[in-house]
Amino acid sequence: MIKVTVWNEYTGQDHPEVVSANPGGIHAVLASFLGEETDFKVRTAILEEPQCGLTDEVLENTDVLLWWGHSAHHMVPDEIVEKVVKAVQKGMGLIALHSSHLAKPFVRLMGTTCTLKWRDGDYEKLWTVAPYHPIAEGVPECIDLESEEMYGERFDIPEPDELIFLGWFSGGELFRSGCVWNRGYGKVFYFQPGHETNRSYSNEHIQKIIINAVRFVAPTIKRNKISCPNPQPAMKTEKIKV
Amino acid sequence: MIKVTVWNEYTGQDHPEVVSANPGGIHAVLASFLGEETDFKVRTAILEEPQCGLTDEVLENTDVLLWWGHSAHHMVPDEIVEKVVKAVQKGMGLIALHSSHLAKPFVRLMGTTCTLKWRDGDYEKLWTVAPYHPIAEGVPECIDLESEEMYGERFDIPEPDELIFLGWFSGGELFRSGCVWNRGYGKVFYFQPGHETNRSYSNEHIQKIIINAVRFVAPTIKRNKISCPNPQPAMKTEKIKV
Amino acid sequence: MIKVTVWNEYTGQDHPEVVSANPGGIHAVLASFLGEETDFKVRTAILEEPQCGLTDEVLENTDVLLWWGHSAHHMVPDEIVEKVVKAVQKGMGLIALHSSHLAKPFVRLMGTTCTLKWRDGDYEKLWTVAPYHPIAEGVPECIDLESEEMYGERFDIPEPDELIFLGWFSGGELFRSGCVWNRGYGKVFYFQPGHETNRSYSNEHIQKIIINAVRFVAPTIKRNKISCPNPQPAMKTEKIKV
Amino acid sequence: MIKVTVWNEYTGQDHPEVVSANPGGIHAVLASFLGEETDFKVRTAILEEPQCGLTDEVLENTDVLLWWGHSAHHMVPDEIVEKVVKAVQKGMGLIALHSSHLAKPFVRLMGTTCTLKWRDGDYEKLWTVAPYHPIAEGVPECIDLESEEMYGERFDIPEPDELIFLGWFSGGELFRSGCVWNRGYGKVFYFQPGHETNRSYSNEHIQKIIINAVRFVAPTIKRNKISCPNPQPAMKTEKIKV
Repeated sequence: MIKVTVWNEYTGQDHPEVVSANPGGIHAVLASFLGEETDFKVRTAILEEPQCGLTDEVLENTDVLLWWGHSAHHMVPDEIVEKVVKAVQKGMGLIALHSSHLAKPFVRLMGTTCTLKWRDGDYEKLWTVAPYHPIAEGVPECIDLESEEMYGERFDIPEPDELIFLGWFSGGELFRSGCVWNRGYGKVFYFQPGHETNRSYSNEHIQKIIINAVRFVAPTIKRNKISCPNPQPAMKTEKIKV
Repeated sequence: MIKVTVWNEYTGQDHPEVVSANPGGIHAVLASFLGEETDFKVRTAILEEPQCGLTDEVLENTDVLLWWGHSAHHMVPDEIVEKVVKAVQKGMGLIALHSSHLAKPFVRLMGTTCTLKWRDGDYEKLWTVAPYHPIAEGVPECIDLESEEMYGERFDIPEPDELIFLGWFSGGELFRSGCVWNRGYGKVFYFQPGHETNRSYSNEHIQKIIINAVRFVAPTIKRNKISCPNPQPAMKTEKIKV
Repeated sequence: MIKVTVWNEYTGQDHPEVVSANPGGIHAVLASFLGEETDFKVRTAILEEPQCGLTDEVLENTDVLLWWGHSAHHMVPDEIVEKVVKAVQKGMGLIALHSSHLAKPFVRLMGTTCTLKWRDGDYEKLWTVAPYHPIAEGVPECIDLESEEMYGERFDIPEPDELIFLGWFSGGELFRSGCVWNRGYGKVFYFQPGHETNRSYSNEHIQKIIINAVRFVAPTIKRNKISCPNPQPAMKTEKIKV
Repeated sequence: MIKVTVWNEYTGQDHPEVVSANPGGIHAVLASFLGEETDFKVRTAILEEPQCGLTDEVLENTDVLLWWGHSAHHMVPDEIVEKVVKAVQKGMGLIALHSSHLAKPFVRLMGTTCTLKWRDGDYEKLWTVAPYHPIAEGVPECIDLESEEMYGERFDIPEPDELIFLGWFSGGELFRSGCVWNRGYGKVFYFQPGHETNRSYSNEHIQKIIINAVRFVAPTIKRNKISCPNPQPAMKTEKIKV
């Protein structure tokens, strides 16, 4: 079983178009389709819970953390951020969704500013550039999203270890929409679709990508402690005199 | 001085729109603006010359080879292709332009099929994703090309060592338009604009990119011979008995 | 089931130390431990069989091809090499073992010379640098090989997409011993241990790595045909007049 | 002119072997040979100066910052660290030397723990794996360092954008000793040699590498502000009705 925790800041519920796009909140929509996978055990966590719902017990029992945040990035305490970062470095997978490009744990793991261009309401065509990648398994070469927030380059990220999806936007921009990085023993996947007033998480292909990504970033092993060991030499060597 | 050779298959001169887009041939247009750089020494070579204009003497005296081919890829003899490939592996820079994605030397150096999607006459917006890269120096974040051949993903190339430009096309596709790879001691830059009936090589920004690329792929050193040496050990080592 | 074909040039059987190190040939030793995995269906092929044992039927029914060659690289016909290369580009995984760094299919897929330094009979310590990688699952951080052929840098390969193992040699050299590249829809893993007079393929950890690698390079999908499609536009776009 | 600032924590001066290995401090030794390059303008800064010697004025007038720290990482205030990180993200080059693998600015830019193995007093052979790289220009394929601190894998860093040097150690370990990453508009080079009781910075080849690195990480452009712009669309697009 892959233990999955879906985190959402869960704000904006006073906007009807936010509520209607993702009834019950984005975490509920994500947990709903993820929960249908028989090898996933899914729970959710939100900002207003104690410790943002991310207690030590929760993090220790999470293989893959999905993160959706936007207007409340600054409300996540640095102490929680450090725990999430350490959990990734020890092996927990992280999937940063849409506006989580500026979520504190993602920015900390990248080491860059993660800034980009944006504009509401473009038509997006999401292209697969690495069709052989496990995250693209069963995904069509192009997914049409009739309305999405445009995210455009220059996206200030480290060169991805693997670039899997590129987004084309009707207003003239494009974006590295699906990227993978290793950080310590953990894998990080950033995925661009998912604006709070759009219905991308109801798209079957977007769901397939997120399901694939959970399996891909799930750890094979976790590291227990972080230290700099000082071993004895195993070999005795000297320079050959010529 | 960087010794530059511009190679062009130089076909299609019976089509007036080819002739008018690049008067004198694409090699002449490229050599003209490259020749204005005081640190470049530029010559041209074309398919119909003996040995395609790429004699041992020419290759030995070339730091950077630009290549433009399209309908006559198959007419370049394999023997010449091998010489070009070896020259790159020893340090010569190669800039493969536009439809040279299927030129034999480029395909040999990539190890993939280098296939892609295509369609004539789209509007292209060429975006810089690595603005800090020497090839992007002095280049705007977006270059508008009013008419270019659409090249679309999936572009079957090895993961680029560096991805510098992405192309957005009006019909809905996008493309990894500017990519760098190391092959042996040589650097390879693939650059998408430059269809034979369009005037992209007259665009000042496209010219700037190609000029920058010549300097970037010019070798710092060249390898003289290709061999597998069998050295004596430098160290005497044994396992420490525990 | 993953359909595995183990290819070996199977030469040197007139040398007793070759025969005793890998009784029945390296292909037999590899097939023996691979055959114990219940999700693998393993067959072997050798140079002296018709078409090197690599008929169209065999290649079409191979998910992962292991390749061991050394003194007979030149005896593999180019026609067979091209078929192997195309099969990889369409999705077949390739594991190139030890002296197969100069095997024609590997060199064709890399696009470099794949030269290196070598010397018989060093002590090797094989270090894991990507312990989180599926190929390193269950593998100790360091494997001691009491006698192996030293392979040393500069190894003339393209920058690996993933570097998993580094080899330390008692005479003073080191080597990028375990590397992964994507080529088309296929994954390629190069793995250094396995000299014909040494017993590395009897080491349980080396076996574990090769078993892991088979699962890792096995394709999720295969590409049927290689072509450059010419699609109709999906979008109608014009520049906004300002 | 490349404006170079050499930062050193400058501790341990009560240990005679530290003083004698690098008279005047490591910053003085580095500044001395860097100062001989006619295109470099070099200054130094140390921990005990106000604001660690890294005032806004100094950082704004620094193209390349060299950093050497070890036992006093924790004494660099987080506010200074953030300024250094931001300066790199805007384009300043950073060269992190030896035990600066745990310096706060380096760790922040990597997003990993940067832990490793260590042991005093090994013999090191430093091998060039990317001889074509500008940082390796004029550098021999192997540099012998008769006494250096062993740094060993697993080095917990993100996959380097370019791996240039590997270190072999007499006790049986090896290390990714020279690595480059892009972070925002800035380049980061980590370089392993330089223990405080050894004389590696007096080695002419080590000096050559550091001089080359300064030129390589010097910015071509700097980014002025860090923001997420909200541009108007440039194109008007609609889906083609079929």
